[in-house]
Amino acid sequence: MKRDKYEKVMDLAKRRGYLWSSFEIYGGIAGFVDYGPLGTMLKNNIINIWREYYVVREEFYEIDSPTITPYEVLKASGHVDNFTDPIVECKECLESFRADHLIEECTSLDTEGKSLRELEQMIREHDIRCPKCGGELGEVKRFNLMFVTSIGPGGKRRGYMRPETAQGIFIQFKRLAGFFRNKLPFGVVQIGRAYRNEISPRQGVIRLREFTQAEGEFFVHPREKTHRRFKEVEEEVVPLLPADRQMDNSIDPEEKVIEITIGEAVRRGIVRHEAIGYFIAITKRFLKDIGIDVKKLRFRQHLPDEMAHYAIDCWDAEIYTERFGWIECVGIADRTDYDLRAHMKHSGEDLRIFVEYEEPKEVETYEIELNYREVGRIFKGDLKLIEKKLKEMDNEEMEKLVREIEEKGRYILRVEADGEVKEFEILKDYLKIRKVVKKIRGEKILPHVIEPSYGIDRILYCLLEQAYREEEDRVYLDLKPKVAPIKVGVFPLVNRDRLPEIAMDIKERLRREGIIAQYDDRGAIGRRYMRMDEIGTPFCITVDGQTLEDGTVTVRDRNTREQERVKIEEIVDYIKSKLE
Amino acid sequence: MKRDKYEKVMDLAKRRGYLWSSFEIYGGIAGFVDYGPLGTMLKNNIINIWREYYVVREEFYEIDSPTITPYEVLKASGHVDNFTDPIVECKECLESFRADHLIEECTSLDTEGKSLRELEQMIREHDIRCPKCGGELGEVKRFNLMFVTSIGPGGKRRGYMRPETAQGIFIQFKRLAGFFRNKLPFGVVQIGRAYRNEISPRQGVIRLREFTQAEGEFFVHPREKTHRRFKEVEEEVVPLLPADRQMDNSIDPEEKVIEITIGEAVRRGIVRHEAIGYFIAITKRFLKDIGIDVKKLRFRQHLPDEMAHYAIDCWDAEIYTERFGWIECVGIADRTDYDLRAHMKHSGEDLRIFVEYEEPKEVETYEIELNYREVGRIFKGDLKLIEKKLKEMDNEEMEKLVREIEEKGRYILRVEADGEVKEFEILKDYLKIRKVVKKIRGEKILPHVIEPSYGIDRILYCLLEQAYREEEDRVYLDLKPKVAPIKVGVFPLVNRDRLPEIAMDIKERLRREGIIAQYDDRGAIGRRYMRMDEIGTPFCITVDGQTLEDGTVTVRDRNTREQERVKIEEIVDYIKSKLE
Repeated sequence: MKRDKYEKVMDLAKRRGYLWSSFEIYGGIAGFVDYGPLGTMLKNNIINIWREYYVVREEFYEIDSPTITPYEVLKASGHVDNFTDPIVECKECLESFRADHLIEECTSLDTEGKSLRELEQMIREHDIRCPKCGGELGEVKRFNLMFVTSIGPGGKRRGYMRPETAQGIFIQFKRLAGFFRNKLPFGVVQIGRAYRNEISPRQGVIRLREFTQAEGEFFVHPREKTHRRFKEVEEEVVPLLPADRQMDNSIDPEEKVIEITIGEAVRRGIVRHEAIGYFIAITKRFLKDIGIDVKKLRFRQHLPDEMAHYAIDCWDAEIYTERFGWIECVGIADRTDYDLRAHMKHSGEDLRIFVEYEEPKEVETYEIELNYREVGRIFKGDLKLIEKKLKEMDNEEMEKLVREIEEKGRYILRVEADGEVKEFEILKDYLKIRKVVKKIRGEKILPHVIEPSYGIDRILYCLLEQAYREEEDRVYLDLKPKVAPIKVGVFPLVNRDRLPEIAMDIKERLRREGIIAQYDDRGAIGRRYMRMDEIGTPFCITVDGQTLEDGTVTVRDRNTREQERVKIEEIVDYIKSKLE
Repeated sequence: MKRDKYEKVMDLAKRRGYLWSSFEIYGGIAGFVDYGPLGTMLKNNIINIWREYYVVREEFYEIDSPTITPYEVLKASGHVDNFTDPIVECKECLESFRADHLIEECTSLDTEGKSLRELEQMIREHDIRCPKCGGELGEVKRFNLMFVTSIGPGGKRRGYMRPETAQGIFIQFKRLAGFFRNKLPFGVVQIGRAYRNEISPRQGVIRLREFTQAEGEFFVHPREKTHRRFKEVEEEVVPLLPADRQMDNSIDPEEKVIEITIGEAVRRGIVRHEAIGYFIAITKRFLKDIGIDVKKLRFRQHLPDEMAHYAIDCWDAEIYTERFGWIECVGIADRTDYDLRAHMKHSGEDLRIFVEYEEPKEVETYEIELNYREVGRIFKGDLKLIEKKLKEMDNEEMEKLVREIEEKGRYILRVEADGEVKEFEILKDYLKIRKVVKKIRGEKILPHVIEPSYGIDRILYCLLEQAYREEEDRVYLDLKPKVAPIKVGVFPLVNRDRLPEIAMDIKERLRREGIIAQYDDRGAIGRRYMRMDEIGTPFCITVDGQTLEDGTVTVRDRNTREQERVKIEEIVDYIKSKLE
């Protein structure tokens, strides 16, 4: 059987130390992967370049929070209720399957947005049975995709492995806002593990139960979804696949993607605002920079029924792969204030920040005072509480109070104190209300957040697939020098006449400069070049007979196989200039 | 109440964005910490320097495996059975406590090495009661410290959050040995989260339930625990506290630590072999390099009864802290072949590697053949199996067979086939045994492993504590430029006359060179310096009136507060040279 590209790439990745099956000696478990020595270097290089973009240039700040997350956080964020997949179990062999995927595989029908009942009907209608034993399938249920654990002894406190790194940022919003001295916009990133307890993952490294995310959260004023540096990217041409074009059957499928500058896309309203547009452009630049072919890249807008529970708009950077087609590698979403609002409600903490107006505004408002003659006897000890509450009321609530007092003659005042909510009936006579005009300096707002979220594992796989090259006599990885794990191979042509010592010394010199060089003296020189080609090492240095005469070595280029002679004293600078 | 150093450091860390309580808006949970924007940069800087030591210079290769680990792996490693703490629950309020710690707090007695029964007796004898409600305490039990989870649906497959990153390396040993072309010694590292479900952590960032480890595993030939580069470190003076001196009551406690070169320590047998000695020296150099005061550092050898279940020797790098005294930050252990042997046994995979002798050896051995006339009728279909097994026997097993055949006239041959073990009774007559002398090229061995294991969170805390400085008019962090999060603050003296634009431009230039610079134009210049001092920023650049005249800016040194004027065109190089 002819092997497809995925198989070829994964075979190389496994043989040469990029990607390994996890727990292999114990039979392995689907949905996990080990990064071998080369894979880890490649991954670290990608992450470091990502940091150059987001941390160094965009001035996002990185935080690092626990992966274990208590129930309360994920209840509030909606993950306890919404982070689920439909599951169906075989009544006979008890194997579980993801119901929507099973239906799609057996019928080629679309299941997007279908309810549990609808999925179950589809199973019955098409007489879909257990793919493993042919048994009858049971009820379709919701399966929560979070790994559950328990914090401390006795199972008293439920925890989950975080389903995304983003929540760690949202729940620290108050501290973060303080760090940025409450000045919007500001950006925060988190890079780390996230978890998704897939029902039956069968797509290798594309669908992992444990994966690495790099997420940025860009907090903005809800009415100012602009970007200060939008000008710098507006000429960037991006391939966009908007939702309406996806749904428009009159457009030829080959022609649904439009190539357009991001500036134009925002002006024409194809992309909703600058903030999303900016990160689409940055994402394209980043992916191109690490070596992704932009011809195999598109930005697809989510259809209304596929959006995550927290988003009102989302564009996925999708990369084309030979086996899996277009796969989502980055999501750029407008999460609005969904998360902050949810955490504010569930935690009781005020997460709003005070935003000053450019200049103070005059607004009509009220001065509300208690009519002490009336209320003293009625509220007694609670008087102070009511007084305080009236002082803290915002404009909106005051208007409501005045309206109700006028219309109904009474208002129910709710006051929180010591975790309890007390209610007081306030009658018209209890208050003195005066209409006044006040100058106000600003207002409290709950920021919205724009989120570029990168799936590092998928990006890494796509990079490997695209770098994979077959020639008649060799296979090589055409990785850019800046992402390649080993930068330089260093060989003595033969193992005598001091050549090994000289080669070892060159390797040490490169290492001292932080350049990952690998010494190799085993086997024929041709075999050594092939080994380095296969792992994507861009340069090989060989110490040979001539080195002893004139102090030069050969430097071979991986792609062209051309060799050049360079003086040993200049070799470090030569390699450095090639790596930049 | 006077605040101690821990409190002062943690207060600063919290206020300025180094360390935050996790899940704070939901009431917080002990044993977790968030790294804020500055904390994360400091942590990343420490990890990157660690990589310079282990990955770039020592040529260890890094791997990255899942944090979720299936039961089988941790059953084999001994963690399911041994990674426990004694727990005791209050019969009344049901609160749990770590039994040994509770006893030590209430009685000041030592509990090291005590059994569950002994701990319970101590509780009864000293009438220790629940510190929370005064209730009676129950039975002392073992509590397993791993976070438990379940992989996939239906709770069919038990998993744990890894208790150490090391196991990920051990179970990939076969692939790793292949990567290093089966040539010992070789080193592998893993950096990442590890988990320990503490019963009731009460030491802040010192005792975390989720923490970051950087572990190195140096695989060596069991008979060659040397190090090729030991010469390079042998003059390094290290403060050692060997086990025998700890137990020797005739030595003054103040004088138990000896200052000695690591070369001398190995020669005198104080440190068991070069491999451990080498990593003690490297650990000292690394800690000193990031800024740890070596006067507050010692290497303490584990006492026999405190060793982890997998180690035969262990030296902890301990750093002195004001509140907690000496705390373990790095452990350097000889784990022998404990883990590889355990995984070999439990997985059934042969994890030995073939080691060639320098030259072939002649050894006495046997040629064992079947006496086909006898056995053909007896074993029938199994004959091939037995034949194969006899061919594959190693010397040791052959000697055992010959001995038993001679002594008892029979031998029970165990053959594994298709996962089953079959037993065959072999009688003397079945075999033809000849003594021969053979040349053998080498032997299969199971490597031993020396492990330097770094607790990054504790090292980071110690660094903050040691960097904390109080002066009359300010507090500052004396962090080395290479670890400081923000390298440069850039200020316009006043917010007019183009000074902000010039300052912003300098900040951008530094960022373009990868240098983390922070622009600040808020408040008086003195306040801005203080803010930067407090977070440990080594340099501040101020753009002032003179800048407009002669194109120079001031550069202020955090520690000395001295200022120097530097030309704007030279500022990037100037800062770069200061950072090196």
